[in-house]
Amino acid sequence: MQRRIRIGLVGGGQGSFIAAAHRAAARLDDGYELVAGALSSDPQRALASGLELRLDPERCYADYADMARREAQRPDGIDAVVIVTPNHLHFPVAQAFLEQGIHVICDKPMTTRLDHADVLLELAERQGLLFMVTHTYSGYPMARHARELVRNGALGDIRVVQVEYAQDWLAEPLELTGQKQAEWRADPKRAGPAGALGDIGTHAFHLAGFVTGLQVDQLAAELTTFVPGRALDDHVQVMLRYQGGARGMLWASQVATGSANRLQLRVFGSRAAIHFDQESPDQLLFTGLGEATQIVRRGATPAGGDAALATRLPAGHPEGYFEAFAQLYRDFSLAWQARVAGLPFDTAHHPMPTVRDGRQGMAFIDAVLRSHQGGSSWVTLS
Amino acid sequence: MQRRIRIGLVGGGQGSFIAAAHRAAARLDDGYELVAGALSSDPQRALASGLELRLDPERCYADYADMARREAQRPDGIDAVVIVTPNHLHFPVAQAFLEQGIHVICDKPMTTRLDHADVLLELAERQGLLFMVTHTYSGYPMARHARELVRNGALGDIRVVQVEYAQDWLAEPLELTGQKQAEWRADPKRAGPAGALGDIGTHAFHLAGFVTGLQVDQLAAELTTFVPGRALDDHVQVMLRYQGGARGMLWASQVATGSANRLQLRVFGSRAAIHFDQESPDQLLFTGLGEATQIVRRGATPAGGDAALATRLPAGHPEGYFEAFAQLYRDFSLAWQARVAGLPFDTAHHPMPTVRDGRQGMAFIDAVLRSHQGGSSWVTLS
Amino acid sequence: MQRRIRIGLVGGGQGSFIAAAHRAAARLDDGYELVAGALSSDPQRALASGLELRLDPERCYADYADMARREAQRPDGIDAVVIVTPNHLHFPVAQAFLEQGIHVICDKPMTTRLDHADVLLELAERQGLLFMVTHTYSGYPMARHARELVRNGALGDIRVVQVEYAQDWLAEPLELTGQKQAEWRADPKRAGPAGALGDIGTHAFHLAGFVTGLQVDQLAAELTTFVPGRALDDHVQVMLRYQGGARGMLWASQVATGSANRLQLRVFGSRAAIHFDQESPDQLLFTGLGEATQIVRRGATPAGGDAALATRLPAGHPEGYFEAFAQLYRDFSLAWQARVAGLPFDTAHHPMPTVRDGRQGMAFIDAVLRSHQGGSSWVTLS
Amino acid sequence: MQRRIRIGLVGGGQGSFIAAAHRAAARLDDGYELVAGALSSDPQRALASGLELRLDPERCYADYADMARREAQRPDGIDAVVIVTPNHLHFPVAQAFLEQGIHVICDKPMTTRLDHADVLLELAERQGLLFMVTHTYSGYPMARHARELVRNGALGDIRVVQVEYAQDWLAEPLELTGQKQAEWRADPKRAGPAGALGDIGTHAFHLAGFVTGLQVDQLAAELTTFVPGRALDDHVQVMLRYQGGARGMLWASQVATGSANRLQLRVFGSRAAIHFDQESPDQLLFTGLGEATQIVRRGATPAGGDAALATRLPAGHPEGYFEAFAQLYRDFSLAWQARVAGLPFDTAHHPMPTVRDGRQGMAFIDAVLRSHQGGSSWVTLS
Repeated sequence: MQRRIRIGLVGGGQGSFIAAAHRAAARLDDGYELVAGALSSDPQRALASGLELRLDPERCYADYADMARREAQRPDGIDAVVIVTPNHLHFPVAQAFLEQGIHVICDKPMTTRLDHADVLLELAERQGLLFMVTHTYSGYPMARHARELVRNGALGDIRVVQVEYAQDWLAEPLELTGQKQAEWRADPKRAGPAGALGDIGTHAFHLAGFVTGLQVDQLAAELTTFVPGRALDDHVQVMLRYQGGARGMLWASQVATGSANRLQLRVFGSRAAIHFDQESPDQLLFTGLGEATQIVRRGATPAGGDAALATRLPAGHPEGYFEAFAQLYRDFSLAWQARVAGLPFDTAHHPMPTVRDGRQGMAFIDAVLRSHQGGSSWVTLS
Repeated sequence: MQRRIRIGLVGGGQGSFIAAAHRAAARLDDGYELVAGALSSDPQRALASGLELRLDPERCYADYADMARREAQRPDGIDAVVIVTPNHLHFPVAQAFLEQGIHVICDKPMTTRLDHADVLLELAERQGLLFMVTHTYSGYPMARHARELVRNGALGDIRVVQVEYAQDWLAEPLELTGQKQAEWRADPKRAGPAGALGDIGTHAFHLAGFVTGLQVDQLAAELTTFVPGRALDDHVQVMLRYQGGARGMLWASQVATGSANRLQLRVFGSRAAIHFDQESPDQLLFTGLGEATQIVRRGATPAGGDAALATRLPAGHPEGYFEAFAQLYRDFSLAWQARVAGLPFDTAHHPMPTVRDGRQGMAFIDAVLRSHQGGSSWVTLS
Repeated sequence: MQRRIRIGLVGGGQGSFIAAAHRAAARLDDGYELVAGALSSDPQRALASGLELRLDPERCYADYADMARREAQRPDGIDAVVIVTPNHLHFPVAQAFLEQGIHVICDKPMTTRLDHADVLLELAERQGLLFMVTHTYSGYPMARHARELVRNGALGDIRVVQVEYAQDWLAEPLELTGQKQAEWRADPKRAGPAGALGDIGTHAFHLAGFVTGLQVDQLAAELTTFVPGRALDDHVQVMLRYQGGARGMLWASQVATGSANRLQLRVFGSRAAIHFDQESPDQLLFTGLGEATQIVRRGATPAGGDAALATRLPAGHPEGYFEAFAQLYRDFSLAWQARVAGLPFDTAHHPMPTVRDGRQGMAFIDAVLRSHQGGSSWVTLS
Repeated sequence: MQRRIRIGLVGGGQGSFIAAAHRAAARLDDGYELVAGALSSDPQRALASGLELRLDPERCYADYADMARREAQRPDGIDAVVIVTPNHLHFPVAQAFLEQGIHVICDKPMTTRLDHADVLLELAERQGLLFMVTHTYSGYPMARHARELVRNGALGDIRVVQVEYAQDWLAEPLELTGQKQAEWRADPKRAGPAGALGDIGTHAFHLAGFVTGLQVDQLAAELTTFVPGRALDDHVQVMLRYQGGARGMLWASQVATGSANRLQLRVFGSRAAIHFDQESPDQLLFTGLGEATQIVRRGATPAGGDAALATRLPAGHPEGYFEAFAQLYRDFSLAWQARVAGLPFDTAHHPMPTVRDGRQGMAFIDAVLRSHQGGSSWVTLS
């Protein structure tokens, strides 16, 4: 049995969505343990946040550079750092850990300037260190299946790429309400010069490249800011010319009313086309020229290969199945804590199935068997 | 900070899907730790399986009764047992742990006989112990939202319930091929007298009751076995009369060709109707009489209340988002292990985004900004 | 060139939906001409209704028996009668025309009593006359494709049939408001002893038989009336045993809140399954065991054969395309009538595309060509 | 009762899809009669084609100018001409009829040159004649509902327009196979300088303008020809700047593998967004900011107003309902013709429901009533 990878977290104090997602992701397959953190530059808050995550107090740092140095010296030091700060800190933090010989897992966009990105690329390669940028959407089994179909030639020559990422959470000036996520994203000092472009445009760009394997040669673009007073773009439209002649369009918007997180990719080749929609990630539409559209499902033939490597559940069990299951465990946990604390438990809002439900299930089975044996006569449940 | 609940596992040795799901679910919110197990009745295999799960060797039991007694005596003994054996063992195992004062988390169907279920119900209540039956589908946020809508009267008086659970994995005699899951389910000695009825019919029955709060008064049913030579039913059809006058139909089949795991519930009331489809668990269709159908999404208004309590991710991030994220972590973990072992790493099939992708994202941003500033002129990516 | 079939109409005066549908259907392929009618038993109204349909006044009858006799004697008499009366009149009217040697097109249900149906069957066969019952849904190209797939063995042995017809227009006591359609359907004297059962249950029953070719051997059923004071059933649930061993369920309801006209048929065979949904009639889902679901579309491969025989439009042009097209023609017709009458024309609510739109389309083409020639530069529309 | 509008047809001889669509559309509401035609420039073929359409031989013209002159002189001359020739003839034909004072219904694109379009615009206005360009898709009730929502302010200020028209019928060099539709469209002499741009790009452009009421100010565009040897574009991508600040993208392609006729329009405003998909024309998605998406259906609340004016069928009856109905009438017609001719009739491929089906429906009703009366006992069909 492999030991777990030891990781430390920079950024992502209390209330951070993306840090919670990183931690849950690291836990799901039981291959990591979180042992250190620089969760705030304020020492008090750094400690409090760390304790909440069950960290050893002496590994709750207020300074990321300090953390990098000290973890590098410990025999049980972290193997990798997870960087979930606002964009402008990605570069110095990544640099500090790379210089200490520590692998990096970094949120996107990798930096706020292209030359900084070049520095990190060179440094990571020189140090021979792993460096993962969390373009999450490339982790979906069906995105990987799409990529494999392209690589295997199932689409023929690619002609057209249509990719879009539509959200609406910035359709109004949320950044003025004190909402943290919106605030730093709207601030060029922390977000860099790209607004929606950096935040979601880069995801769309990565997914298109990930699946098609094509390189963009040239592009023509326009940025728009629809919400008055906003400093950065909230809308991006781009025409693409790919190496080899394919054409494409990329659209990213954070003012697309009614769109929660609609990342969609369509690729049209000379022989077939695919359509991946991140909001229905368990399926991929595949249409051969002159053939019926196929709804290819994760976990089922013909989505083997790379998709199978990234699959944990059988077909028809959407990936949210784990979360539904975890919800029962969460309810049970709350019931248990209430029990331990001698408090009442709110079963109305935490309706976990109990022995009473189990007993009713048996009564149902019993009644069905009786009715069946009686020629489908009506019988009463016991 | 709450301490984690200590759990032990009975059943679910290597290769068990449902045991893996239980463990992942317990891990997702970081509220449990697995510390003991009776994973096989063969001592050697019990130990090997336990070590794979990083259990202390002395807490790897070959006998569940022994485990119940010894864990009850330890100061750091398990708080709860998780039972994932074939159906016929649910009863004696649950009984053994309840008698030792240990809480129970048990897979469905709870027992194979109604009188056994009554014994467990009585015992759990007498002992004052928690007993959860894992009807997973009731953990979906939108199933809970559906239930809340009913309870709040949004549907008016319920008139019609249509519930169905269609699978096709037993459309052929899979149990004759040595497939373990199929084998014990097809064997009345281990599965009990109900085939598809016990395996999935009980889920459909529970979900309908969970959401509607209605009690079945009478039913008329027919069981069918379509695959020749099979001992138990693989198809169930039932007409339902609910207390209070509602009517319903329940259909469960494991020979429904083309259906992976299609659990669907439709409830029609005097004022509105809802439709929940387990294969698209992030949404619930709601239609008021004379109104447009609404696609209500997890994480978004109006799915607050109970749904919000069971939600971890914002709207538009399907629950599989965690799994996609975890996939990147899994790839990274494999890359790291390869690195540690001095082995090459197969990036072709584990295509995690690297610093090179991060750098390309920055090149994209840079090009878009240049094109935009040049009046949407075509520019070349650096 | 074939001459048009001469038809006469019995029932279906002003405001009748179903009579209008029959007339539009007869007109679509230009194979019929309507030349006679008994549109009301009131002579004045019969004449007025007939004139509205441009009938010769002497062929506007107030008595269907009279019409049958006199049309039978004319050298240019009708070839066929179309019967769109309330249910209780289907039998005597059909009988009267059959006896005069006139072919019959009759709405469903054919009669209100089984023995009457037997009389018509015997009479039509003895007279050697055509008799069509308008089970409209069997006219959909994809319903015919479904039937052909079954007949060709693509599904293997049929095991399970699930058919349902859900409406909600009688969820409230509409028959008490004077609404004509609801009124006679709720009246046992005119509708016969079956409510939802006769009105839509028969459609569901027919479609299932039409597609599968199977004969029902036995059934077990329950009727329910949910709306207080209603004399006939508004909800039907049935379990079916087919000859040869298949099983099925049929559900028909006119109180299924939120359902407009949801007729769905699913057939599961040993090798494949199909799913037809009348509200998306241009597609059929087909799933082979262990294969991806295919969305088979009308007008496209592989829906040839019988579907092609019933197809007028290429794939992707939904059948409503004709209606959209006809809408432009209707707008033009209204504009022309206004012109003839010297009245103003309401272009706001009849927004037909005019020469101005045509000119704008050319300006668009012109601008695109100019931009393209200028390296995708921004150009202004002329 | 209004008299029918008399129309004549120019172009659209045997085998023309679009001419058949025009004729069916004109027939659907029974407001037109076709009385003249210039269906071919070859006198023999013009006559033969005309007879097939039941035209008076003396009104079968071989020359459109001749037809314009002579019809203008007849007291029963045509009120309007329908032009369905290849694009390059639209201009001279429309001009000829306008000059004779005859209204015009013309297929799109209106001309092949912008200056010709200006001439027609000026001429039609000077003559005071009706001129309709058949942008069919604006005839869909839900496209009209979308337009009304915009006009009523339900969307707030429009920010983003995404419109696309994807087909795949020219993904291969179909024009080299002798297929007529493809041949003239690929020929600059007959199609004009725009390929996919003129053929479908203009439809997309019109629909966006029709619904939003916005005027394009500037655009930046690129045309591509993917199929080697083709003279005209088969792919168009355009970025749009609307007057008032909205932004948009337009994409039209005839090499979009797997797309039959996918015309989609999405409009995002400050308060709400809409999504119309021509392949599901009976519904419109509407999403208010922060609200659940509504599936608004034709024929149902809240799609009243303009949509209701363009609606012939109740909700849930897709517009293809008429075609399904017409199919039964077509089958009946074939059966009748076979009968008249003394030939056998192929019921296998023209499966119209007969008196036998009607009788079976009654047997079904009878059995359900018996089972219900017997406590849902199993009964056998008579």
